[in-house]
Amino acid sequence: MPVVITDIPRLDPEVVSEFSDLDVATAHEAQGRTGLLSSALRPIYRPAHIVGTAVTCEVAPGDNWMIHVAVEQCQPGDILVVAPTSPCEDGYFGDLLATSLQARGVRGLIIAAGVRDVATLTEMQFPVWSKAICAQGTVKETLGNVNVPLICGGALVNPGDLMIADDDGVVVVRRADAPEVLKKARARLANEAGKREKLASGVLGLDLYQIRERLAEKGLRYRPYSEQG
Amino acid sequence: MPVVITDIPRLDPEVVSEFSDLDVATAHEAQGRTGLLSSALRPIYRPAHIVGTAVTCEVAPGDNWMIHVAVEQCQPGDILVVAPTSPCEDGYFGDLLATSLQARGVRGLIIAAGVRDVATLTEMQFPVWSKAICAQGTVKETLGNVNVPLICGGALVNPGDLMIADDDGVVVVRRADAPEVLKKARARLANEAGKREKLASGVLGLDLYQIRERLAEKGLRYRPYSEQG
Amino acid sequence: MPVVITDIPRLDPEVVSEFSDLDVATAHEAQGRTGLLSSALRPIYRPAHIVGTAVTCEVAPGDNWMIHVAVEQCQPGDILVVAPTSPCEDGYFGDLLATSLQARGVRGLIIAAGVRDVATLTEMQFPVWSKAICAQGTVKETLGNVNVPLICGGALVNPGDLMIADDDGVVVVRRADAPEVLKKARARLANEAGKREKLASGVLGLDLYQIRERLAEKGLRYRPYSEQG
Amino acid sequence: MPVVITDIPRLDPEVVSEFSDLDVATAHEAQGRTGLLSSALRPIYRPAHIVGTAVTCEVAPGDNWMIHVAVEQCQPGDILVVAPTSPCEDGYFGDLLATSLQARGVRGLIIAAGVRDVATLTEMQFPVWSKAICAQGTVKETLGNVNVPLICGGALVNPGDLMIADDDGVVVVRRADAPEVLKKARARLANEAGKREKLASGVLGLDLYQIRERLAEKGLRYRPYSEQG
Amino acid sequence: MPVVITDIPRLDPEVVSEFSDLDVATAHEAQGRTGLLSSALRPIYRPAHIVGTAVTCEVAPGDNWMIHVAVEQCQPGDILVVAPTSPCEDGYFGDLLATSLQARGVRGLIIAAGVRDVATLTEMQFPVWSKAICAQGTVKETLGNVNVPLICGGALVNPGDLMIADDDGVVVVRRADAPEVLKKARARLANEAGKREKLASGVLGLDLYQIRERLAEKGLRYRPYSEQG
Amino acid sequence: MPVVITDIPRLDPEVVSEFSDLDVATAHEAQGRTGLLSSALRPIYRPAHIVGTAVTCEVAPGDNWMIHVAVEQCQPGDILVVAPTSPCEDGYFGDLLATSLQARGVRGLIIAAGVRDVATLTEMQFPVWSKAICAQGTVKETLGNVNVPLICGGALVNPGDLMIADDDGVVVVRRADAPEVLKKARARLANEAGKREKLASGVLGLDLYQIRERLAEKGLRYRPYSEQG
Repeated sequence: MPVVITDIPRLDPEVVSEFSDLDVATAHEAQGRTGLLSSALRPIYRPAHIVGTAVTCEVAPGDNWMIHVAVEQCQPGDILVVAPTSPCEDGYFGDLLATSLQARGVRGLIIAAGVRDVATLTEMQFPVWSKAICAQGTVKETLGNVNVPLICGGALVNPGDLMIADDDGVVVVRRADAPEVLKKARARLANEAGKREKLASGVLGLDLYQIRERLAEKGLRYRPYSEQG
Repeated sequence: MPVVITDIPRLDPEVVSEFSDLDVATAHEAQGRTGLLSSALRPIYRPAHIVGTAVTCEVAPGDNWMIHVAVEQCQPGDILVVAPTSPCEDGYFGDLLATSLQARGVRGLIIAAGVRDVATLTEMQFPVWSKAICAQGTVKETLGNVNVPLICGGALVNPGDLMIADDDGVVVVRRADAPEVLKKARARLANEAGKREKLASGVLGLDLYQIRERLAEKGLRYRPYSEQG
Repeated sequence: MPVVITDIPRLDPEVVSEFSDLDVATAHEAQGRTGLLSSALRPIYRPAHIVGTAVTCEVAPGDNWMIHVAVEQCQPGDILVVAPTSPCEDGYFGDLLATSLQARGVRGLIIAAGVRDVATLTEMQFPVWSKAICAQGTVKETLGNVNVPLICGGALVNPGDLMIADDDGVVVVRRADAPEVLKKARARLANEAGKREKLASGVLGLDLYQIRERLAEKGLRYRPYSEQG
Repeated sequence: MPVVITDIPRLDPEVVSEFSDLDVATAHEAQGRTGLLSSALRPIYRPAHIVGTAVTCEVAPGDNWMIHVAVEQCQPGDILVVAPTSPCEDGYFGDLLATSLQARGVRGLIIAAGVRDVATLTEMQFPVWSKAICAQGTVKETLGNVNVPLICGGALVNPGDLMIADDDGVVVVRRADAPEVLKKARARLANEAGKREKLASGVLGLDLYQIRERLAEKGLRYRPYSEQG
Repeated sequence: MPVVITDIPRLDPEVVSEFSDLDVATAHEAQGRTGLLSSALRPIYRPAHIVGTAVTCEVAPGDNWMIHVAVEQCQPGDILVVAPTSPCEDGYFGDLLATSLQARGVRGLIIAAGVRDVATLTEMQFPVWSKAICAQGTVKETLGNVNVPLICGGALVNPGDLMIADDDGVVVVRRADAPEVLKKARARLANEAGKREKLASGVLGLDLYQIRERLAEKGLRYRPYSEQG
Repeated sequence: MPVVITDIPRLDPEVVSEFSDLDVATAHEAQGRTGLLSSALRPIYRPAHIVGTAVTCEVAPGDNWMIHVAVEQCQPGDILVVAPTSPCEDGYFGDLLATSLQARGVRGLIIAAGVRDVATLTEMQFPVWSKAICAQGTVKETLGNVNVPLICGGALVNPGDLMIADDDGVVVVRRADAPEVLKKARARLANEAGKREKLASGVLGLDLYQIRERLAEKGLRYRPYSEQG
């Protein structure tokens, strides 16, 4: 039943580009605190920040054959999202595959497994979020799937979904939700900008967010150190 | 019973400043190899090195409400020390809270949980030692405590204790022990300085520390490779 | 039975120097995908890349006495390989020991345990691959062994074996296998060089490696997104 | 946006009952090796084996409020499937909740978090698969969702899906796929039964599965120990 | 500075005996959800349930010398609480030490490290809560401390504190707090008993705890499956 | 280069049978505290205790093909020892393979990976020490090696080595060392027997092992609780 789904729908590149300065935490909050991938997926170098559309690739443990197949399905602006069918930290991906993806305009790799050649990937400035760095390569024996929905880092990723990855981690935004999430994220950032200035000037969050009263209602007491029993 | 203890006693800033060039390993040795926090607390960027007095904050899992409360209790020269009541790697702390702490002269954050906005925190040069980096934020529903003794990274931290954090980790020094620890640490460093020169010149530790005899007594033998069975 | 084996055989420095530009992943592949140490051993700074001959040192948990003994057995071009007899993440090694090793021309440390003083080690550019960074030091009470075969990071290392360590991890090459591994690694690199150019020009791996037919034989199907059920 | 979805569709109890002797491994193979939850979810006692329809419940870290809400949505033959929005090992569930579920005919609990009162749960023979056993309870402050699709143990579970759990772990079968999976699983078991007898009589798998030739084609060689170099 | 503190104060055995049917979860709740040791400390067999006064013992990594010293400080009704100064999973404790403790009337062992001889310990019915089971023994070279306050499993334990351990984990109760905790725990159990009956009869927790209104206030909505978008 | 080594040398069954009542901890001590496999390898049921000669099998991640090959190389009294070439927790082994091994007189399985069908394996009383229990099966695509030396659980195992496994873990004894280890283990057990009786009668280890003086020399002090500062 291994299958490669071709011609997946993608977001309009202009919509994607509007996300390009959004960070993961803001997008995650803006869509109701959903869609975050496991914090075990870390960037191989920092800082790094990419936004793009997901091409998904499901691989067998210790076998990167399908990544070679997935490359052909990638277009400029895509992000390759790879997950093994069972936990594996082998180095599925190195500088040759990165060269190939970079030649196709792919923006980065998100992989719930290991990668290698990280010194070269860093020099190439090809960003990768992975679960491990491991020199052990893989074989090419077992088929998998390309552009099927998969679970990567504990989150469901559909082909064509929008991926945002930065130093804090990775979040997936459903294709259909993108415009709404963008709007909410923009509102959130605008709101934060004003707060940052006030906080920098010394205004307390307790006052800025007006939470003193609610704290008191819940029963919070203040007591000087000198009055402890 | 949630409580905020105010007006905690602090070390004289001059005493704190005398610690400012001490590293964690030296302080740890100087106080009899005690007080180290778990090595799972790592700096979000390196190099980083801070010394200051602890303001402690106990939070519920997935809830950073009390950090906002704790900010008000912080003074210039303090370090905020946060621990959840059960293990949690959510991103409790980001650039807005850091802005607020920096405005109050706080030197950094030590947290046995996760943080986010690490790219901005790095730009701001606000140092953080944390257990995780995670974009998932928190809610504001549950009370906790500020300036009570707590266990952070497996070590007991009292409000007003001296915290030292560097690339090797974090150590806590009891307020009352600080002068004695300082004296021993200085002696240790002076002693090491001479050793470093000798070792750099090629003198062996075996001779410098005069341990050949004790090794022999314990039964260590030397045998050429060619004489193995 | 603790023993220090002296005068171990080493590879000719010229042979070692021929390996100096080989990366871990290539060497690992060239020797039939064997000899890799656990990916839990990470460099304390990046980039880092060393090649040298192993001096091995087996230590008790929480006790670095034998490292001081091992230093004397090291020669220029060596790499010190340390493993505890049971898992331990204490900081066995710091800047004083590094000073001593650097004075003897040792190229770096590989240790399946913890190290400390990493800020100074980074300044000194003394590369270390370790399982942890931990300020907690060790005692000097229990004997161990120097230059016996040991398991480090799950791989068998014999004294005199060739060690290669880079940003991807660490691999061990048996002394006797070194010439053969070198030959195969060179062939591999030559082969990759041509591929990199082609991939950069947009040639697909599917075509370059001629794997389309084998994928089809194994049953891989292609199906447009629009034709899904 | 927290929501409770009521009146979810369920499989016909007769279809469910036909699965009652199927083990997790067989069902997993029968549906193309998909749908397995993480092996980190372990039964609190063994042996244990349940089959039923999923009622899903998404909870905040350290907060079991929504489990109380989910109980009302459960019917005889259901299995409650709980996942926190971020990793948490608190004891979300104990003997009181189990009493309530047992009163409603619920067959067990699958939870990607912690549980407590395991001695009583074992006496009650209320089976639970959990990520941890932890006496730390939870609060009731934050809303979540009931009967929305969620990721539990790295697998997508929809309300109404069929869950199978045994000593090997937990697998989810899509509601619509159940009849087909049942058919394939039955065929698989029938096939295995004959094999078991032959293997017990001493027939080798190499002959039974007729794989000697394929092994040889791939290059496997046999060599007596005495002829090694 | 290694020290053995003798003649520690202990709770009246009658007070301890009143705790003998209390479980860990109840005691933990009764004292304001504090004092729980890490859930990584697991019983080596189940069921197991002990209550007693703590004799504390701090050991070096890989070195159980001080446990032999601690045995002499134990009295009938005590529980030995052991923590290493840095993480270590060696088997510090086996059937000989258990024989010695059992001869002195000690009720069990709580150790944030490893133990061995678990088959014999199970036969002897000497209960142990440990972080690991490991056949690797320890040496006797390095001093530690007996009956000093220590951190075990992330919780502070003072000599003479009350320890409760069962299948859910381990909790520490401060000596001075014991009477108050006992009272609250009893009230809690009485309260639960009535609830259990009602829940068993089919009354919903939503009604029993009267939380429907508060859920609605917080914004929880109910929606039939058939009305989803 | 995949190879199956046939006709490996084995210990005389009578020598093996003399080990049949030896536990892992005793054998480990008797051979100088070496040869222990990682404590991450746990028995799937307890109690369990086997002794036998190793047939080794190196497998690819997620691929159990070579286990089928290894079965043919097994003889009565053997123990199958399996290690993957990179970390993998898939269920490599289930009841069919166990049936086949049991038919050949094999005593058990030691595997640094996952197994499944543990309920049936327990009923069959076929003992297994594994790193995980996981229902996810494996494929049959990639060759490996049988009866080559391999690293299993961090220890080197040669074909024909003696394996001992019990509730505490697994230890390997080199074939040539077996007689000497046996002698030392017997002496150790005889010595322990006398000690057990004395300890049970209340004699303290401090006196039995005569260590009071050495403790004092090292600087251990005793101080009554009431005299603390």
